[in-house]
Amino acid sequence: MAPPIVRLGLIGCGTVGSAFAEQLLAREPLLARRLGARLHLARVAVRDTRRQRLVPRTALTDDAAEIACDPDIDVVVEASGAPYAADWLRTALGRGASVVTASKQAVARTPALLERLVRRDQRLWCEGAVAAGVPVVRALRESLAGEEVQSIRGVLNGTSTFLLTRLEAGATFEAALADARALGYTEADPSADLDGTDAAAKIAILCTVAWRTPVLVDHVSVTGINGILPFAREGGWRLVATAVRDGDRVRATVAPERLLPNDPLASAHGVVNVVEVRASLAGALTWSGAGAGGAATASALVGDTLSAARQALRRLRARVAA
Amino acid sequence: MAPPIVRLGLIGCGTVGSAFAEQLLAREPLLARRLGARLHLARVAVRDTRRQRLVPRTALTDDAAEIACDPDIDVVVEASGAPYAADWLRTALGRGASVVTASKQAVARTPALLERLVRRDQRLWCEGAVAAGVPVVRALRESLAGEEVQSIRGVLNGTSTFLLTRLEAGATFEAALADARALGYTEADPSADLDGTDAAAKIAILCTVAWRTPVLVDHVSVTGINGILPFAREGGWRLVATAVRDGDRVRATVAPERLLPNDPLASAHGVVNVVEVRASLAGALTWSGAGAGGAATASALVGDTLSAARQALRRLRARVAA
Repeated sequence: MAPPIVRLGLIGCGTVGSAFAEQLLAREPLLARRLGARLHLARVAVRDTRRQRLVPRTALTDDAAEIACDPDIDVVVEASGAPYAADWLRTALGRGASVVTASKQAVARTPALLERLVRRDQRLWCEGAVAAGVPVVRALRESLAGEEVQSIRGVLNGTSTFLLTRLEAGATFEAALADARALGYTEADPSADLDGTDAAAKIAILCTVAWRTPVLVDHVSVTGINGILPFAREGGWRLVATAVRDGDRVRATVAPERLLPNDPLASAHGVVNVVEVRASLAGALTWSGAGAGGAATASALVGDTLSAARQALRRLRARVAA
Repeated sequence: MAPPIVRLGLIGCGTVGSAFAEQLLAREPLLARRLGARLHLARVAVRDTRRQRLVPRTALTDDAAEIACDPDIDVVVEASGAPYAADWLRTALGRGASVVTASKQAVARTPALLERLVRRDQRLWCEGAVAAGVPVVRALRESLAGEEVQSIRGVLNGTSTFLLTRLEAGATFEAALADARALGYTEADPSADLDGTDAAAKIAILCTVAWRTPVLVDHVSVTGINGILPFAREGGWRLVATAVRDGDRVRATVAPERLLPNDPLASAHGVVNVVEVRASLAGALTWSGAGAGGAATASALVGDTLSAARQALRRLRARVAA
């Protein structure tokens, strides 16, 4: 009997999406063995279908909504970062597909998606939305699922870390920003990095998973790094996201902090994110690793895609059995 | 309709087992909501059934094999650390139950158990066997499942870290060992900690999960800390477990290393374990947290028990449907 096939649709084929697609195609036989099913990249939504990509032309579309709606796509992998990504995710989930996303703002601004995280919906996976390949979402979701999380702290925005450490080393803000752009560490418009809304979306997602209550990005109190730029040369400044549970409420903030040298968060440098979670039994747990970049984010998408595909396989088998 | 019940049997009710049982009983309603089923601690195997414990007398037995064989127990949680724990685990798995264990030697010495880890058997969970509550086994098993792991390094034995840092601070070996005993950091017989066999079992499990090939503890090349004790005062020494893939083979070693101050592993202190995994896409990922202690190990057991219970529930539902 031929192995079953799980059909994937990829939305967005920029740095992250193409790193994901390359990994998937390069390791197809191995992933098939691990899953017990073939993972077939059936459709890819790109901005310009005329540019040569990794899949046959016929698999390409410039309309992401087509993939979200396509009943033959079992798992939608969304790596576009587009502001309307939330609509595609909701459409795909609404028709029964599984969804893997790296779009933090789409998740953290959409109550319906946060609600799915609250109930650990096996059809929504978003490791890549927070700290790229650092597996902290899954740890909160599964490893610490029976635990009481007490607090979360993290340096979750690599761009601001990069800028602050460059300023600390004596660079001007203009030179530091130019370096960040040249290294691909920031968008053309770096405002979401500098004003803290990027980190706010990430801590909102971590809070939602840890405390099983939806925390929208708008509920995070946010202060960007602009105000402390004149003091950055003092050293030790990082943009820190903090969250604690306060009775039935979650208090989450993003603000610049001057860290003591022995603070685990002070080891964040360049694109390296650091997250510290305190839980009642496990005590203080710390993760660190690259929190940005195509490959690191693709790592999270691949891991989540295997989990989503496993769930999709159960659906496919139940359908066959029925 | 009453919610379904998943029946647990606990083997071993020492420091770890009792911390697990306490958490389970204290958070029963919450865990039931999270799981969609009641987790009922139906039986507990203890050394002395006359001592007052957390469950009714009738639930106690002094024969662990009874729990392993009991067809009414859906999930066996093993926290005895007993040398023959492997037999109970195999018996329970053999009759179709799920198993959660914290016994590193039982897993790392038993090919049949390592084979189950290789194929990601959803009925065998062993997070607590490595670095206690630091969720690195699950990360290798699930988050990095589609990735190529390149290397693993870890400071995985808290006792040797404690002794080495005490010697570094000027203590004599006898005084350091007495402190470790007084703080509950080591067994009456500390030889497995000092000679490296404890760390060897842990790295064997990590290798097995990361590279999906069974690595027995006997295949790990081991050097304990005895030989470097005279130099410990130089500072920076840790007992380091290292593993790389070399073609089709896995090379794993445990040996004392003098670490550079900026090595992530050098931040291991007291019972804090540090693990660094390098993967092709994610790059270098680091975890740290308490690698020993009743509460930290119980954290891993609770997380794994929820996963094992989810799998058990699927079995129970399939049985009802059939």
